[in-house]
Amino acid sequence: MASKAFKKFLPLFDRVLIQRFEAQSTSKGGIMLPETSKGKVLEGEVLAVGDGMRTNDGKVMPLTVKIGDKVFLPEYGGTKLLLDEKEYYLFREADLLGKFD
Amino acid sequence: MASKAFKKFLPLFDRVLIQRFEAQSTSKGGIMLPETSKGKVLEGEVLAVGDGMRTNDGKVMPLTVKIGDKVFLPEYGGTKLLLDEKEYYLFREADLLGKFD
Amino acid sequence: MASKAFKKFLPLFDRVLIQRFEAQSTSKGGIMLPETSKGKVLEGEVLAVGDGMRTNDGKVMPLTVKIGDKVFLPEYGGTKLLLDEKEYYLFREADLLGKFD
Amino acid sequence: MASKAFKKFLPLFDRVLIQRFEAQSTSKGGIMLPETSKGKVLEGEVLAVGDGMRTNDGKVMPLTVKIGDKVFLPEYGGTKLLLDEKEYYLFREADLLGKFD
Amino acid sequence: MASKAFKKFLPLFDRVLIQRFEAQSTSKGGIMLPETSKGKVLEGEVLAVGDGMRTNDGKVMPLTVKIGDKVFLPEYGGTKLLLDEKEYYLFREADLLGKFD
Amino acid sequence: MASKAFKKFLPLFDRVLIQRFEAQSTSKGGIMLPETSKGKVLEGEVLAVGDGMRTNDGKVMPLTVKIGDKVFLPEYGGTKLLLDEKEYYLFREADLLGKFD
Amino acid sequence: MASKAFKKFLPLFDRVLIQRFEAQSTSKGGIMLPETSKGKVLEGEVLAVGDGMRTNDGKVMPLTVKIGDKVFLPEYGGTKLLLDEKEYYLFREADLLGKFD
Repeated sequence: MASKAFKKFLPLFDRVLIQRFEAQSTSKGGIMLPETSKGKVLEGEVLAVGDGMRTNDGKVMPLTVKIGDKVFLPEYGGTKLLLDEKEYYLFREADLLGKFD
Repeated sequence: MASKAFKKFLPLFDRVLIQRFEAQSTSKGGIMLPETSKGKVLEGEVLAVGDGMRTNDGKVMPLTVKIGDKVFLPEYGGTKLLLDEKEYYLFREADLLGKFD
Repeated sequence: MASKAFKKFLPLFDRVLIQRFEAQSTSKGGIMLPETSKGKVLEGEVLAVGDGMRTNDGKVMPLTVKIGDKVFLPEYGGTKLLLDEKEYYLFREADLLGKFD
Repeated sequence: MASKAFKKFLPLFDRVLIQRFEAQSTSKGGIMLPETSKGKVLEGEVLAVGDGMRTNDGKVMPLTVKIGDKVFLPEYGGTKLLLDEKEYYLFREADLLGKFD
Repeated sequence: MASKAFKKFLPLFDRVLIQRFEAQSTSKGGIMLPETSKGKVLEGEVLAVGDGMRTNDGKVMPLTVKIGDKVFLPEYGGTKLLLDEKEYYLFREADLLGKFD
Repeated sequence: MASKAFKKFLPLFDRVLIQRFEAQSTSKGGIMLPETSKGKVLEGEVLAVGDGMRTNDGKVMPLTVKIGDKVFLPEYGGTKLLLDEKEYYLFREADLLGKFD
Repeated sequence: MASKAFKKFLPLFDRVLIQRFEAQSTSKGGIMLPETSKGKVLEGEVLAVGDGMRTNDGKVMPLTVKIGDKVFLPEYGGTKLLLDEKEYYLFREADLLGKFD
């Protein structure tokens, strides 16, 4: 569903490239923050992941989310970036709240 | 008792998905914060838990609370989220105050 | 002396459930903070303790105070909670100042 | 494409010497921050890298980006420096957002 | 010289129970902070010590000051407490400045 | 080129004694910060280095810059000191930006 | 040259007892901070040192400066104390800038 242009982008370390889902007027089984962010879409799909943080003794710690995962995003944080005219978001993995099927 | 919709949601790392108990006018053996939050329900049930934080050398540290545990929640903190029209809360495990039978 | 209702409450990690001693007008051998908190009772009894913090490599570090210990509490900090209409306090063990016989 | 003068400059530790790409009026497949920084060029090429940070036990942790990598830069941060009349930027590797082909 | 009541008090972890020396108008070989705290007695005797902090891997790190040591106290910090009508002070060992004969 | 008086000075731990280069009106291949610090000389030569920081387990971690290295200095930071009427600067090694030939 | 009274004082952990040199109107080969602290004497002699900090696993890390070392002091920091009517200063070793012959 997402543009293939993101394939050019490789997040560094523990960063995750996210495409938010399109806003829907009704949320069938979807997750949404009420009151403060009515209608704000806070779910997305993982498009690319970094190799992982390196531990203090230099080993790489791979991410636990993977491409294709559907994740729930925090309301604040993340870096917005444009790739081929589409908006994407870059989050550190530890800031993602959860994943769901 | 809780909606099964939460089954779709998997918290990441050390996060815990909580459903608060319904507010009751009388607190029989229940725990409640007096004065500052009279009537505010601060107990809940654990609906889903993350896999755990990773230690500095990359091992996963499983959570100590588990699904079904009744927990006592701090007055502040946690992220509210809506799943199938019901309110849930996401806490880091270290912010939970205690569990009880 | 304390209500048995607290038995239902299990503090998590390094938290300690405390019942403050009753306020007394005279302090026979008791410890009290003068001036700033005259008459404020800052001693209590340990009613329940958590399993302990986990170290960076995932081991559990048991608490050093135990149920029945008489402890001296800092003037600020701790979380007040009501159990069967009685007030209790939850402290992290490292915030307790000392114990005494 | 970049001046060879940068060859004289060796970043220390985890620092990376970057040359930003020239600003272009149209972004064909390029990445750009919309709204807040329209037209600001946030992509660059790695011209030189440090040897890496040293871990707590004194080992050197080599960088993961290398000379020639095309990287995406954060909007803020980095140190601007002039080498033979050209502008370069110095970033810590952990502040780079991602690389792309 | 100090009241025996302090024997009832056992500091926790790295805390040290101190009794300040009586204020003297002349300081024969004593240490005193000039200007800012003229006449303020900043020396004391160690009356009780905790078992020590626990290291990250759970071992206890015993204190280096011991009962009877004469110590020099920082001007700020410490917790004042009353034991049988006498004032005592509780310091973390790392806050003590030095000891002297 | 630098005064030999600096030989008397041995920086401690990870500190580095620097002599800034003389200000020049034209910068042939030199590095200079434009706009904010026009003409400010930010290059220097390492005159003396400390033995290095000690790691958490007590080992000494030698510096990577050495006497005679030409380094690029951050615009802020460092401690100015006078030795035989000449100005020198003391930096922590981690604050140096890079070295160059 | 320094009073022998300091022999009574043993700094704790990584602290160092310093006696500043007497202020001199001319600085022959001496180090002095110009402008901001003209004439302020910032050199001193180490009179006593602590046993050293303890590492995370409980080992003692001895100091690298020793009694008799001539050291250069930072302009701010340190604790002034009076011993037999003379002024001394207490610094943490890591705050000392360098030593010189």
